[in-house]
Amino acid sequence: MRVIVYGMGAIGGIVAAALARSGAEVIGIARGRMLEAVRGKGLRLISPDVDVTVPVPVVAAPGDIAFRPDDAILLCMKTQDTLPALEALRLAGVRDQPVFCMQNSVANERLALRVLPNVHGITVMLPATYLTPGEVISYCSPKFGMFDIGRYPEGADQADEDLAALLTTAGFAAFADREVMRSKHGKLLLNLGNISGAAHGVATDDKALRQALQAEAEAVLHAAGIPFADVSQADPRRALYVNIKPVPGQLPMSNSTLQSLKRGGGIETDYLNGEICLLGRLHGVPTPLNDAMMDLATRMLREGIEPGGVALEQTMAALGLDGR
Amino acid sequence: MRVIVYGMGAIGGIVAAALARSGAEVIGIARGRMLEAVRGKGLRLISPDVDVTVPVPVVAAPGDIAFRPDDAILLCMKTQDTLPALEALRLAGVRDQPVFCMQNSVANERLALRVLPNVHGITVMLPATYLTPGEVISYCSPKFGMFDIGRYPEGADQADEDLAALLTTAGFAAFADREVMRSKHGKLLLNLGNISGAAHGVATDDKALRQALQAEAEAVLHAAGIPFADVSQADPRRALYVNIKPVPGQLPMSNSTLQSLKRGGGIETDYLNGEICLLGRLHGVPTPLNDAMMDLATRMLREGIEPGGVALEQTMAALGLDGR
Repeated sequence: MRVIVYGMGAIGGIVAAALARSGAEVIGIARGRMLEAVRGKGLRLISPDVDVTVPVPVVAAPGDIAFRPDDAILLCMKTQDTLPALEALRLAGVRDQPVFCMQNSVANERLALRVLPNVHGITVMLPATYLTPGEVISYCSPKFGMFDIGRYPEGADQADEDLAALLTTAGFAAFADREVMRSKHGKLLLNLGNISGAAHGVATDDKALRQALQAEAEAVLHAAGIPFADVSQADPRRALYVNIKPVPGQLPMSNSTLQSLKRGGGIETDYLNGEICLLGRLHGVPTPLNDAMMDLATRMLREGIEPGGVALEQTMAALGLDGR
Repeated sequence: MRVIVYGMGAIGGIVAAALARSGAEVIGIARGRMLEAVRGKGLRLISPDVDVTVPVPVVAAPGDIAFRPDDAILLCMKTQDTLPALEALRLAGVRDQPVFCMQNSVANERLALRVLPNVHGITVMLPATYLTPGEVISYCSPKFGMFDIGRYPEGADQADEDLAALLTTAGFAAFADREVMRSKHGKLLLNLGNISGAAHGVATDDKALRQALQAEAEAVLHAAGIPFADVSQADPRRALYVNIKPVPGQLPMSNSTLQSLKRGGGIETDYLNGEICLLGRLHGVPTPLNDAMMDLATRMLREGIEPGGVALEQTMAALGLDGR
């Protein structure tokens, strides 16, 4: 199995670097300054345990790759970039190869299955940062991160097993999972507070807000009949494989929404809180808190509010929530 | 109600021109040569009964509009452009205004409801062409076209009634419909042969293929528990309002997939046949014929095959279908 990592942000970068380091056959698809940096000097992978720079073959677009039947394609771009990416893959000859959606959110699998038959989901437990071109940071130890991998809408096949084996060899904890969307919906619940971290500051204690967002979302998932797994710190695999630690000489851990705000372009809130709003609207469950997070993200972009520039007390008061 | 027509292709152009001609308050959002043409000399609306050029206020992006609470926004862009359009609308201040999805396909309503609360669908029965900037052609008589309009996922509210009234005054047949997605799924069945017209030539008799595609799709919709209405020629409203007629001095009617192929960029097959493939994959119903149409569209784009450049007999033989 050759692995095509499409989208070299934090997650794609860490996966590509770790796979290349372990000797796996991997090609990255990157753009802009990341493409230049990796071409010029390789990709630097930093974690609590490792600081290595590895050469990673990298191209600008799927059309630059002669695809093979044994390719596995990992979609690591932002969800708002998934549709053109799928089209580019098909025009480059991808048809029956397994395509794995690594994005936070549960929307990409459906987008992909509309145009390609062999779609898989991956739950990504990998607190990570990409801020400097050519450098990616995982805050996880002793493994670089943890993945649940399975076919969409359900099941697990040889491709899931093979990819899990490659990722395990590369230093991740990776598991084939016959119900990967249960796991991804559980992860979605954990990401509902990303926008709060971005708005109120990642060091601010917003636990009460996060719990309220999650409770509202759980009611929506119950009403929609969608099962979800607990992949929070209560998941016993976390303590074994992915303890979050500081990385010497690097900024403390950020979150993906904050990073996307900083880099500009769309933000992922639409596919996190937005998924709960959508399901609430479809199933008649009000979602005022997650609606407010959507409005908060829009307001930050519209008004150019700096990350951390919103007072949590103000948000809590507007929502009628007790901050303690 | 002021109407914002976002996307000035064939459908958006005809709606904007007819509304402006009737005295309704309308703003178009267009780009490129269409924007220039309409700004320079107005928008020419041609039908079997009418040939008029009307001034239509037109802007380049949602950010150029000071949105009002009484705005209704019609999404008339291609489905692959819907996500960035929704983001642009929100950054321009749209939040609670009704947003109407006019695209062929049933995917846009879900995309929109994820990020905005007030989403509606419109079934468009309006054979139309846009090939020359500043000119749009409806082949319908005595009305310019026919619309079913309702809230997503179901119901109909005052906005649907108000828009239907404006469109009726503008020369369309327009109906509020409490089950608009039934109607849109019925329309989807009729569009499954669009790619065949584009590939095999619009004058080629591909009735057997179209019927086979539709039969496969009906089995999928039944398995998925999705109801659909018959909006084919059997719909008695068609004979009353939207008879297809030649337009003097203009090319014969084309189809939207063919037009999108000619103009370049993505093609809509993904959201027509692709929707059937998606539902088949989700519900365990094989869809070899609609899969083959997806492959056909991809092949035309990959190999640069001219519209009409594929022999129908070849396609039928490859599918094991009898062409008679």
